[in-house]
Amino acid sequence: MEKPNRENCPIMRATNVMGDQWSLLILREFFLEGPRRFQDLQDLLDVSPNTLSSRLKRLEGADILVRHQYSNNPPRWEYRLSEKGKALAPVMNALHDWGTAHMPDLA
Amino acid sequence: MEKPNRENCPIMRATNVMGDQWSLLILREFFLEGPRRFQDLQDLLDVSPNTLSSRLKRLEGADILVRHQYSNNPPRWEYRLSEKGKALAPVMNALHDWGTAHMPDLA
Repeated sequence: MEKPNRENCPIMRATNVMGDQWSLLILREFFLEGPRRFQDLQDLLDVSPNTLSSRLKRLEGADILVRHQYSNNPPRWEYRLSEKGKALAPVMNALHDWGTAHMPDLA
Repeated sequence: MEKPNRENCPIMRATNVMGDQWSLLILREFFLEGPRRFQDLQDLLDVSPNTLSSRLKRLEGADILVRHQYSNNPPRWEYRLSEKGKALAPVMNALHDWGTAHMPDLA
């Protein structure tokens, strides 16, 4: 990594939009399961609706997730990874590998 | 990635200790600069002492950082990456690469 301008380094820019645990756990679901609805995520993650909503809005605003209407009547949406979101696979894989190798099983 | 036990998946275990923006920005400094003192980090990151202290304690508690006394009189400490911490390099590199490719420059 080259010496950064700390206010404008790529890690700062990346973590501004996905550098928190809920965003990472939400992204995990898309890599594992593909498209997801709000309710799916809420059920899987035991996250408050407000927190989930704020993270999904930020991920959608950063073009990491795309909201897609899959039913008109009643109107229903699901979220999918964009190409930019899919490009986070190396981050998720590296986290997964490090957690597997270095963080003890909680079971 | 295999199907996870969501409460005990490697990404959950990893992000429990370093999955927040301050921890990631603190870790960035060690990959860029090597050993750092508390005051160095505070000056570089514009982070409150309480926040910095809590993140350093958590990273040290997870054996990602090691605290090393480099002066006896007065007593002074610096932090270094452990081997476990150095093993986060692929995570940091992947974040850096994704930020470079996908998050627009703020300048």
